[in-house]
Amino acid sequence: MKNALIAATLSTMALAGAPAARSESITVSVAGSAASVLADPKNFTGSVVVDMLLPTSLSTPASSALVSFAPGARTAWHSHPLGQMLIVTAGKGWVHQEGQERQEIRQGETVWIPAGMKHWHGATAQNAMSHYAITYIKDGKNAEWMELVSDEQYQN
Amino acid sequence: MKNALIAATLSTMALAGAPAARSESITVSVAGSAASVLADPKNFTGSVVVDMLLPTSLSTPASSALVSFAPGARTAWHSHPLGQMLIVTAGKGWVHQEGQERQEIRQGETVWIPAGMKHWHGATAQNAMSHYAITYIKDGKNAEWMELVSDEQYQN
Repeated sequence: MKNALIAATLSTMALAGAPAARSESITVSVAGSAASVLADPKNFTGSVVVDMLLPTSLSTPASSALVSFAPGARTAWHSHPLGQMLIVTAGKGWVHQEGQERQEIRQGETVWIPAGMKHWHGATAQNAMSHYAITYIKDGKNAEWMELVSDEQYQN
Repeated sequence: MKNALIAATLSTMALAGAPAARSESITVSVAGSAASVLADPKNFTGSVVVDMLLPTSLSTPASSALVSFAPGARTAWHSHPLGQMLIVTAGKGWVHQEGQERQEIRQGETVWIPAGMKHWHGATAQNAMSHYAITYIKDGKNAEWMELVSDEQYQN
């Protein structure tokens, strides 16, 4: 159930940003109003907790979540059809673009991952890391998931 | 100069989300790497400081900024062509949709403002408030600015 939910929310989320009707109201979503979910082990390695920032019933141009990685935890290799922004809210992590050097990311830093770029991100081996993830949706999809990141790839 | 910059970044920002080329790299932007700017008094009342989260040279589907309002400070009335998400990072503020009751927003809450909705947001009269603002861009614009919020409107 949790995996099904997170697969639905992270991988193939909501319908893409049709402008909302003017009759809708402003939504104020309180942290903790929806249950945290464990990320799907098909697309993540290690302990990863996801808190959606807005009700998934809303139609928005991007999905938005707080994602918390335990030490050693990371996404699988993946790409985003319209790119993704990460705002690191705590800890220290790594982001790794295929064919490049792994980069360290820390609290207070903002990361832009361009469209179509194969990469992964997660905590460092010794430190937890949390980030907001704003992931733009194209034709109802916000990510293309690929193979898991091996321990060798993770350690560089 | 500051006003010109903030007008450019907040009002008529960047070109809308054409998918970036695959040859681009991941950008890691360190907090404080660009100067903070004071928001344009044409569109804001009181002391409002804006820190862009990513270099304005990047083409992204939304603008992204940390916006810090002193007590009593607020935006003008405005709307967004594709909507806006606010993540309240500190303090206590108000968001006010035209024709509705003013709502209080606090640290840890996320706000969704649908497309085309006339509203304002800012600090409360007694407390500062900071939020991330993710503002989706349509045809190169992310906001339509209207009249300032009078003291009477602000106090309800």
